[in-house]
Amino acid sequence: MKACRGEVADYTPVWLMRQAGRYMSEYRELRSKVTFMELCRSPELVVEVTVHARNRIGADAAILFADILLIIECLGPKLSFVKGDGPQIDPPLRDPDEVAQLPEIDVDELEHVYAGVKGIREALPRDIPLIGFAGAPFTVASYLIEGGPSKNFEHTKAIMYHRSDAWHELMGKLARGTASYLQRQIEAGAQAVQLFDSWVGCLEPDDYREFVMPYSKQIFDAISDEVPKIHFGKGTGLMLELIKEAGGDVVGVDFMTPLAEARQRLGDTPVQGNLDPVLLLGDREVLAKRIDRVLEQGQGQGHIFNLGHGILPNTPVDNVLYLIDRVHEVSRK
Amino acid sequence: MKACRGEVADYTPVWLMRQAGRYMSEYRELRSKVTFMELCRSPELVVEVTVHARNRIGADAAILFADILLIIECLGPKLSFVKGDGPQIDPPLRDPDEVAQLPEIDVDELEHVYAGVKGIREALPRDIPLIGFAGAPFTVASYLIEGGPSKNFEHTKAIMYHRSDAWHELMGKLARGTASYLQRQIEAGAQAVQLFDSWVGCLEPDDYREFVMPYSKQIFDAISDEVPKIHFGKGTGLMLELIKEAGGDVVGVDFMTPLAEARQRLGDTPVQGNLDPVLLLGDREVLAKRIDRVLEQGQGQGHIFNLGHGILPNTPVDNVLYLIDRVHEVSRK
Repeated sequence: MKACRGEVADYTPVWLMRQAGRYMSEYRELRSKVTFMELCRSPELVVEVTVHARNRIGADAAILFADILLIIECLGPKLSFVKGDGPQIDPPLRDPDEVAQLPEIDVDELEHVYAGVKGIREALPRDIPLIGFAGAPFTVASYLIEGGPSKNFEHTKAIMYHRSDAWHELMGKLARGTASYLQRQIEAGAQAVQLFDSWVGCLEPDDYREFVMPYSKQIFDAISDEVPKIHFGKGTGLMLELIKEAGGDVVGVDFMTPLAEARQRLGDTPVQGNLDPVLLLGDREVLAKRIDRVLEQGQGQGHIFNLGHGILPNTPVDNVLYLIDRVHEVSRK
Repeated sequence: MKACRGEVADYTPVWLMRQAGRYMSEYRELRSKVTFMELCRSPELVVEVTVHARNRIGADAAILFADILLIIECLGPKLSFVKGDGPQIDPPLRDPDEVAQLPEIDVDELEHVYAGVKGIREALPRDIPLIGFAGAPFTVASYLIEGGPSKNFEHTKAIMYHRSDAWHELMGKLARGTASYLQRQIEAGAQAVQLFDSWVGCLEPDDYREFVMPYSKQIFDAISDEVPKIHFGKGTGLMLELIKEAGGDVVGVDFMTPLAEARQRLGDTPVQGNLDPVLLLGDREVLAKRIDRVLEQGQGQGHIFNLGHGILPNTPVDNVLYLIDRVHEVSRK
């Protein structure tokens, strides 16, 4: 929490995006019995997975186990996860004229998420903050429109560039819903929130400013100022200043962007990142050097150590423990 | 050719990456009779496809029809293209100890490519330059190691970070082979060459400098100075200066990087790019505005108009004709 506010901390805090995920055998075992969506809809299992992962690795924060696309079902389409293919949204929203018929997002439908947040907060050690999160409107819209992962975002950009009326209406709807969703997570006990704009790096900065930033900003403006807000997108190295301008207290940095450059360009704004997750698959000697480099470039104060993207499923847990320990030891004053 | 040298031209020249590809019905018809590899191995068909596409759309240059991965078969593995899955390399090179056993690349095995170049040169209008090309060592290595397209480049980076001895040996081998391959294309009649480092944007600049740049530089240094050399990689907006430093006369710019920023950072170095290919799928009004914006940011002299990535298969040919005409008309002095 101190790092989020840019204050001096005893050491650089560390958590990992997707830290409760598939690299952990206990998670895989649970998932052999329930589907991903069943897990997400069960507050008990969400508590178990979130708290276990945080305690197993000793991270300085827990992050809610959930998916950025849960909110899509509030708009009508069905969300499922197909092994190997990632999320599938059925039906995808391909006709811009259908945007007007979408309902307002009723975040009461995500009650199970807030129940999970509350349960996690109760089960976590009291000195460990819980981070809530949501997908940013651009990234959620891209999944909604494409129907799943995409390489070129053809359908998304078709609506954005050619039917900007429908685009702005959709983004407004997603922004209002996402703001309420995060606010409810905060009320349930989340002590920080992260907005994931995972795929927004497929846009050039001017388009980000015109078609995306107002909606991400609307979310940051709407939610409580009492908790720190983190803003992350992959491939955003050319528009870090805009990510900062959109709001939030901490800018997440991906692994392709030099952290030293990010710090320089962002001034006093705290940063989070940015070890390449691939480095956790290899030997310790290289890993140690790269951890130290991230710490050095992060400059201590106002730096939250994290990966520059989600942890990979075949990461050895032992390497994660090594990472956490090394970050703490090297950065301790 | 003038634009490549940074000289004043009558108008901004334009060609499109993958301009002879699947968006063209004549190409799809041909491909219903032969596989992609059969096409690549037939100089007659390569001439037909390359020259037809250039003449059909009236681009200011033709680019050899080929694939950046053809060179991989000179190392032993078999290359094939599976519909929907892209290139497959069998077997992939996963064991770094196998690098030492790879043969030196014998570019005589790609005689059919040079025959194609010669045939295209003879069949093309004499005022239309022919661009030869090759994949850069990093991108070719990534396919060789992963065995196909990759999201995280785990195996590639594993060798690069953890077995840098094997990595450097492999890159050296690819650089030597690629330099000879391009030189042979030039001798056969290519009047410019482009080096595609499609996936190198998955690295941060310091890693590019250490693990990749020396090999791309070696290629540019080795091939004839008599033809202009273009250097392109997607996601390289944070390291344009290094792409320039690696050599070549023209820096290709992807669609996520503002062209005005590229021009400013690159000084007098000519640039090529950078319309988002998705814009060719939509209506003309938006397309026209975006073409004009690219032209404006390109600043005329020393700018070759292109897409910021390959043309998409479902692009209407009429929109391509419109694009070419508009680039010529708007930029004409």
